[in-house]
Formats: sequence, structure tokens, C-alpha cells
Amino acid sequence: MNIRFYNARILIQEEHADAAQSGTSVIQGELWVQKDRICYIGPGGDAAHEEPVWDEQINVNGNLLMPGLKNAHAHSVMTFLRSYADDLPLQSWLFDKIFPMEAKLSGEDAYWASKLAIMEYVSGGITAAFDMYKLKNDIARAAVESGFRMVFCGDMNDFGGTPEITEEEYVRFNSMDPLISYQLGFHAEYTTARPLMHGLAQIAHKYKAPVYLHLSETASEVAECFERYGVSPVVLMDQLGMFEYGGGGFHCVHVSEADMEILKRRGVWAVINSCSNAKLASGIAPVFKLWKQGVPLAIGTDGASSNNALDMWKEMYLTAVLAKLKEKDAEALPAEQVLKMATVGGAHAMCLKDCDVLAVGKKADLIMINLNMPNMQPQNHLIHNLVYSGAARNVSLTMINGRIVYRDGQYFIGDDPETIYREVNSTIKRMTANKI
Amino acid sequence: MNIRFYNARILIQEEHADAAQSGTSVIQGELWVQKDRICYIGPGGDAAHEEPVWDEQINVNGNLLMPGLKNAHAHSVMTFLRSYADDLPLQSWLFDKIFPMEAKLSGEDAYWASKLAIMEYVSGGITAAFDMYKLKNDIARAAVESGFRMVFCGDMNDFGGTPEITEEEYVRFNSMDPLISYQLGFHAEYTTARPLMHGLAQIAHKYKAPVYLHLSETASEVAECFERYGVSPVVLMDQLGMFEYGGGGFHCVHVSEADMEILKRRGVWAVINSCSNAKLASGIAPVFKLWKQGVPLAIGTDGASSNNALDMWKEMYLTAVLAKLKEKDAEALPAEQVLKMATVGGAHAMCLKDCDVLAVGKKADLIMINLNMPNMQPQNHLIHNLVYSGAARNVSLTMINGRIVYRDGQYFIGDDPETIYREVNSTIKRMTANKI
Repeated sequence: MNIRFYNARILIQEEHADAAQSGTSVIQGELWVQKDRICYIGPGGDAAHEEPVWDEQINVNGNLLMPGLKNAHAHSVMTFLRSYADDLPLQSWLFDKIFPMEAKLSGEDAYWASKLAIMEYVSGGITAAFDMYKLKNDIARAAVESGFRMVFCGDMNDFGGTPEITEEEYVRFNSMDPLISYQLGFHAEYTTARPLMHGLAQIAHKYKAPVYLHLSETASEVAECFERYGVSPVVLMDQLGMFEYGGGGFHCVHVSEADMEILKRRGVWAVINSCSNAKLASGIAPVFKLWKQGVPLAIGTDGASSNNALDMWKEMYLTAVLAKLKEKDAEALPAEQVLKMATVGGAHAMCLKDCDVLAVGKKADLIMINLNMPNMQPQNHLIHNLVYSGAARNVSLTMINGRIVYRDGQYFIGDDPETIYREVNSTIKRMTANKI
Repeated sequence: MNIRFYNARILIQEEHADAAQSGTSVIQGELWVQKDRICYIGPGGDAAHEEPVWDEQINVNGNLLMPGLKNAHAHSVMTFLRSYADDLPLQSWLFDKIFPMEAKLSGEDAYWASKLAIMEYVSGGITAAFDMYKLKNDIARAAVESGFRMVFCGDMNDFGGTPEITEEEYVRFNSMDPLISYQLGFHAEYTTARPLMHGLAQIAHKYKAPVYLHLSETASEVAECFERYGVSPVVLMDQLGMFEYGGGGFHCVHVSEADMEILKRRGVWAVINSCSNAKLASGIAPVFKLWKQGVPLAIGTDGASSNNALDMWKEMYLTAVLAKLKEKDAEALPAEQVLKMATVGGAHAMCLKDCDVLAVGKKADLIMINLNMPNMQPQNHLIHNLVYSGAARNVSLTMINGRIVYRDGQYFIGDDPETIYREVNSTIKRMTANKI
């Protein structure tokens, strides 16, 4: 499909997520999509650029085109447990409530729960998710059918997976479909025995690949790692050679100055999950200090059972204001930087080098923002409006890989919403009726 | 207008905001509105209840009817300064940026900025606001034309207003229109000389009326009050007899145990503004401790220039999760209580005794929530879904005083959206072009 967007405001960002905030601007003009890529950005009627034959021409009416939001830490399937177990601390929430339910999950359940997550993603302007979960074949099927870009993260731990299985998945999912990719990873230090971690580090060295894991999410996780190994989880990973080719830590709430220095030196992404960490009372990540130290930053929603929404607008807001609260400084972490974390940063964190910004040659992973809604008015500062006042309801169109998957409340993801809701509700009903 | 809602889920709450959380339930059935009031709630086809002649019958399709959200602290006009001055601490934000712009504001400006706020309110399910600002005639005109319920709060301070003016406003606005009411109040201790406060306390005694003010919002405000008077702002108000007939404190971020004891004893509402306090780095109010001590609680958005959205869904979420963060306890402040703060609590805080819950004889101030959206699925726990995952986009209909003011993206508030946007943008353009 060749699609012409005209009469648009277009958000232009620096490709480097850690660049100064001055790298963000808004231009007026057109954006052309040819198949899966952006082929032109500029003023209309430019004689030097021959127009393709258009399948559709969309009048943006002065609204905004911007890169899709990147959900850099997700467990998409966990939508089935939304509001199932709230108001509990992480350990009992995870071991008493979540793990027993997940043990009952079938591939078909995972397919439908992923579809529900994808509905929430695309209607809220999320064009890619970095997903850690089992049952990847079923999630991949849901993603490809939906036209959604899914980057898997290896999920090995003591209860499932091995370095060999991770390697097999790495090879297989990275040649499966243009919408699917895979990065090496494992669940976390506190759920994974040392030999497994050691084996995974060797795979990372073999492929010169980055490694991702839940890292320093809670104070007790860090304390227990000190008991087991005498060092913090970040230091342990460094000692294991896990970050030889970079990678990322999900959460990074309880990281020391020394930990930050390692993350910076290794180019390891700190993926911030403000809502989940707040709701589980895990703490506030030191985002401002991480940024000042030069640690690359991205934002994720975590799963729906801990968050409970999969809403990057809410994440951006909380990330911004919690940084100000933590530093006791209203100037900490400017809005431009938060927007970069949620777009360019997330794309780079999950190795989506072609989906980071709106520019010629990049993948057409973009969203249209309705500025003619009360929370976007007046237009004193467009980027501040996005970060401090923007919401999922402002997303009027979502395009991934050149395909429109959501537009004005309508989903173009294969299955219809009613079927998806019915199937996910039947999953949870079956599980709770059958307590075994 | 007589309107029948059928095929509905209906949220039923205890009238007492401080009752145990067990007081919330959801029933299935019908809700009938006759003129401005609810005249029936129950199963359909009930022979004992004669149906009025219907002007409209609305199939709720299994979705939810609930009381409108009550914005218990607002400066509606400040929409014109949204995203105008962000990332600044409260004192310099207020004195260097906000006050100079507000000095240039005309009544016509205030009318349009109020209309913009009302658009955001009704599209996000807010049916009443407790508004502190000057130019009340213009705000009242916007509210009455829009069909919006506005409760004014006296705004006297050293730069404008007197106890006499406050009294005159109190009498006049309380007999103006069914949608308009007025409560005694003043800006804050730190902006108001003692003789003015003393005079207002006398008015409160004369009318046996509650008094409202910004109270203990920042640490520096409290410290300066100690310097001036040797006591905290809460203690000073108690000494002045300000809370003889109750009242409320907006923010209540920096309150001591002794302060809480006074608030409880006097029945003074603590109105929590989580987003504004976070964004301005003022701190996290001790909501859980206030609740446990028995201080009555409500929630407000504050103004759009500090927040920056007027979104009670965001406020509910932040109030819940910040309480968990502050207490380092994921169990702190259950979702049911937060929902009560935003509905029953807010109504009682602003003395709207007839707008608190859905029950026969109450005012028809209600909203319809679309449950057939991905963030509301699956239906593991409806109230948790509302508080932890709900968003303004779930609001499909807003009714105030029996009149539908918003429905499926359409506004029925007198002026059309394009005009409102144009006028507010022209206000700010005129002000910033004309620097004097």
C-alpha cells in the first residue's frame, strides 16, 4: 500500500536517544509511505519528488504524525490477569497469585490474551513491544496476524528454558517474519541458577548479542543477590560477562552509583516501568540520575496484572513526575527527554534501528495524534502537551510496517473485538472454576 | 427530559465516603431519570413503578452507569496556561510565570478558558468542579450555558477580595442557578494577611459555614507559617476558628499527626491533588495515614498549568499508587476507597449532598463507562479495572442535572469545540505578543 499523509504536523527527532533535548522539532508538510517504509517527508507539491500511485490519501487536518510509542518491557499475555490480584507486594503477588494461574495457560489462551494486549497497544499508539513470556509461537501468531511488531526477549529461568532452547529460539524467531524479532534474555537473577546464566552468557558471546533481564526491581531482590553472591545483580551480570555486547535491565529501581557506572560503560539500557513499580510499591527508579550518568533509557508498561493498563501515555507521565518527586526538583527530567525514551529510546533498546524516528528510509511505524481535543489545547507547547496532558484517547490512527492497524476506534488486526473479549473472559472463567 | 437507561450495570455506593469498602456493589437493571433527578433504579418491567413518558430510551448494552467524578479542587480558567510554564518549582512557577499572565486576563478570556475546561471535564466524566478563581461571573456564565455544575470557592487574598466581597459572593452565587453554588474560602495562609483571615472566620461563624483554602501544599509554606505564627497552617486555622463548621484543605501534603488530628476533629476535608503535587515536586500527601486517622478525603485536579490534564482517572491512579509508594506497602489504600474519594467524597467535600451516589431522589449526575474497550477487559474486577486501568476514553456519556452534555465525542455545551479552541489560543497569543 502507498499512503500519502498531507496537511500534517510531523514530529522530527534526533536518532540518538541520548542527544540533547534540542533535537526535537515539529515541521509542517507531507509524509509519504511506500509499502513498509517512509519514502518522503517535506512540503507538498515538491516537483523533485515523483509521487507513487496512491492507494489512499489521508488529510491529517493539521494534526500530528509522530513515531509510534515503543513498549520496551511487556508481558502481553498477562492481560488475562488484569485486576485479578491487586494490592499485594511483588513476592506474594508473583508466587501465590500469578505463577499458579500462568501454569494453567494453554497456547490458545496465550493467543487470545496477546490479541487483547495488541488491541490496547495499537489503540494507545504503541507500535512495538519487547515481550518476555513463554508460549512464543502463539504470541507470534497473534502478532503477525494483527500486523503488530513484536520483539521477543528470552525468558529462561529455573522453571523452564535452557541456554540451548534460548539459542534455538534466537535463531528461529529472527528469521520468521519481518514483524518478529528476538533478543537473548532470561527472567532474572533471583529465578535463575548460575549455570544457566553462565550458559546464556556464552551464547551471547557466540552471537555477539546483547542480553536482557529483570534487574534490581525490588530491594529484597538486591539484598538476596548480595547474600548469594556478595555483589549486586548488576555487578554479578558484569562478572558473568553477560553485558559484553550490551543489553538491558528491566526496572532498575534499586541501582547504586557503581551499578549505574557499569550500565553506562556497557551501554546497557535501563528500561523504566514507573506504573508497575509504583503499584507494587517497589520504589521509584533513579531516572534522572541514570540520565545524567549517561545510561541509555527506555520505558515499558510491564504486564497488565501489575500495572494494570498497557498505556505508554500514563507511563510517560509517571516517569516524568516521579523523577521530579524523587529528586525534589520540578526541573528534573524535561518532557522532551521522556518523549525520546518512549520513542527513539525504546526502539534502540529492542534493536529496532529502523523504527526509531520519522525519516526517509525508516519503517512506517507511526501514529496520528488528534490535537483537536480539549487536553491538547491551547497549543502553548506541543511536546509538553503530549507528555503532561496527552492520553491514549488522542491516538486517532496507528500504522505499523506501512499497514493501518487502528483508526478512529476501529481495529484492523484480524479478529474482531467481541471475539477477543469473549475468549479472554472464558480463559479466566475456566481457570478460576477449575482450581486444580 | 425523561430518560430511561436500560440493560445497564449500575454502581451502587454507600452515601458515607468514609464507610468501609464493602459498601460498593454493582447491580444489573434500569435507571430512570425524570427531569433533573433519578426516579427509579431496579429491574426492568417492574409493574409497581409506572413509567414516565420517555423522551429517550438508551440501551446501555451491559455497560456501566456510575456517579459522575467530582473534581474537588480546580482552577478551571487556567487551561489557557496549559504547558505554558512547566518544569519549574511552585514558588517561581506561581510568582514569575502564572501571576503575571493572570493579571492580563479579561472576563471574556475567562469565559472561553472555562468552556475549554468544561469540555475536558465532561469528556472525562467529571460532572462537578470545586473552582477557586477570580472572574466568577464569567465562569458561572460558561457553566450555566454548558449545563455544568460549578461550585465556587472564595478566593480572597492580599491581591484581591475582602471578607465583605466574599460574603456578597456567597449570598449571590448560592441563589443564582441550580447548577451554581458557592462555599466560603480564601487562597492560602501564605498569600493572605491575618486580618483578612480573621474577618473571613467571622463570616463563617455568621453563616455557620465551612471554609476552604490551599493548605500545607509545600514544605516551604509550612516552614514560613511557623516563622510567621509559630504554628503550622492547620493549627493556625484552628486557632482562628476557621474550621468551626468544617471546611477543607486543598493539597494537605505536609501535614503532621497533630494536624491530622485537628482535620479529623473538625471534619475538614483533605482534598488530594496527586498529579499537581508530583509535577511541581511538592511531595506526596499522606493519604493512607489521613484515611486511617479518619480524615474525610476527596480528589481534585488542580489547574491545567500545574497538572497538566484535568483528568480524574489519572488522579485516581496516582492517588492509589503514590499511597503505596509512600507507605512502601502495595496493600495501602484499596481501589474501592480511591473510587469513593473521587465520587461520594468529592460531592460531600463541596457540599453537593444530592449528587453523591446513584439512588432514587438524587440528582441525575452520572456517566456511562464503555466496558467494551481493551483496557476494561477481561472483567476480573470491575472496580479495580476502573481505578487501575480506566481512562477518560472509557467515558461514553456524561449527564448533569438530567441533561446529556457529552456523548460519544459530541459536546452539547452551547459553543462548538472549534470556536472554543480558537478563542483560547487567541487569548494566549494576545497575551504573549503584548508583554506589558
